[in-house]
Amino acid sequence: MAYELYYWDGIQGRGEFVRLALEEAGADYIDVVRDQRRGTGAMVEIMESDSKPHIPFAPPFLKDGDLIIPHVANILFYLGPKLGLAPEDEGLRHVANGLQLTITDFVAEAHDTHHPIDLSLYYEDQKPEAKARSAAFIRDRIPKFLGYFERVLQQNPKGSNHMVGGALTYVDLSLFQVIAGLRYAFPKAMAKREAEYPGLVALHDAVAQRPNIARYLASPRRLAFNEQGIFRHYPELDSAE
Amino acid sequence: MAYELYYWDGIQGRGEFVRLALEEAGADYIDVVRDQRRGTGAMVEIMESDSKPHIPFAPPFLKDGDLIIPHVANILFYLGPKLGLAPEDEGLRHVANGLQLTITDFVAEAHDTHHPIDLSLYYEDQKPEAKARSAAFIRDRIPKFLGYFERVLQQNPKGSNHMVGGALTYVDLSLFQVIAGLRYAFPKAMAKREAEYPGLVALHDAVAQRPNIARYLASPRRLAFNEQGIFRHYPELDSAE
Repeated sequence: MAYELYYWDGIQGRGEFVRLALEEAGADYIDVVRDQRRGTGAMVEIMESDSKPHIPFAPPFLKDGDLIIPHVANILFYLGPKLGLAPEDEGLRHVANGLQLTITDFVAEAHDTHHPIDLSLYYEDQKPEAKARSAAFIRDRIPKFLGYFERVLQQNPKGSNHMVGGALTYVDLSLFQVIAGLRYAFPKAMAKREAEYPGLVALHDAVAQRPNIARYLASPRRLAFNEQGIFRHYPELDSAE
Repeated sequence: MAYELYYWDGIQGRGEFVRLALEEAGADYIDVVRDQRRGTGAMVEIMESDSKPHIPFAPPFLKDGDLIIPHVANILFYLGPKLGLAPEDEGLRHVANGLQLTITDFVAEAHDTHHPIDLSLYYEDQKPEAKARSAAFIRDRIPKFLGYFERVLQQNPKGSNHMVGGALTYVDLSLFQVIAGLRYAFPKAMAKREAEYPGLVALHDAVAQRPNIARYLASPRRLAFNEQGIFRHYPELDSAE
């Protein structure tokens, strides 16, 4: 039975981390909300159910038969072994999950650059605060997170082509997406800084060239980054400082 | 061999979610940083190693032999089955992990009420923004998250004494901590609102009365909430609006 992925239509967003894993593995899946016969209503119906057990708080969530699994890192922890995208070793699976959760935190901070005060307001209603938060993000947080991931990559005892273990995992795919998203949102900051992270840039490029990923990126299933997603390009928030 | 928990001394913080599980289970563990012979240096040495594999980004992390496991939800996913605090069923373990990750997100938002702009600055340097973010947190986010957890509790097919399955899990312990923390940080908001979440309040009380938890809470190992932790009481941020 096909996996069912539930996520907002129109953006890459957090759903993209799951899509990349499903696409790399060539898995059979349905992107439910984008399926015109079902749409957003099918997703909201599950989330708003006042009788079903274990309803999710927010998308993305995965449905595998009757089981509903929310949160990107949780979905990838579940899917990883089934898709051949997780380490064999149980301990290393928790290492991979720890890395994915650090990516989760970083992605949440990238989101908060344009929404530092109030999720229910537009970016335009919190612009000065967004500018202050973005400055701190570019100055402190990008170097802290990317510097960390670069060190983990370089200190991987199985070689620096992968974040954990000696083969591709979903963590590598997610870091491709992080680099791509940062380049879109903060092109000036990244142009100035990314040479400090040669391992991550090489990892990004290697992932982009994998046949299934390259095919996916060239397909209409890969939406473009835009200003409704997590990574948004507002030129006034970017800086080469 | 005893588990080693690594977390900042002086605050409950994110480490507390792990401590509650270890204490409930009566597990043998060392709170490494609080151990005077080892202190913060032992933690920083692991985080800053430029040779060790799989270094953690931030505390808390757990050391079990050679394995280092970072992130609260990851630690609890790992420890849960070993401590008898996770569901037996594999699918339900991912349900528990999904709930724990929703708690993680909520806790991060509670933290950002006093640090909406810049983690490297003091609260006092971002007070007007903290007030705006706290207002949105109290108005929108507390009801959204607690309303969600209450629904999950009430819709648990195994009964509304537990969040998932028919027995105590680490998710229940974490929700105890969330309610306690919100009451500390936002007493006016909670006094006005918490009757809307009778199941969560009952769960909080039931956890507090468990013998091992009650003993822990009365011990010097349970630090008081304070204004260096996640949940901080700044009266100017609280409101019964």
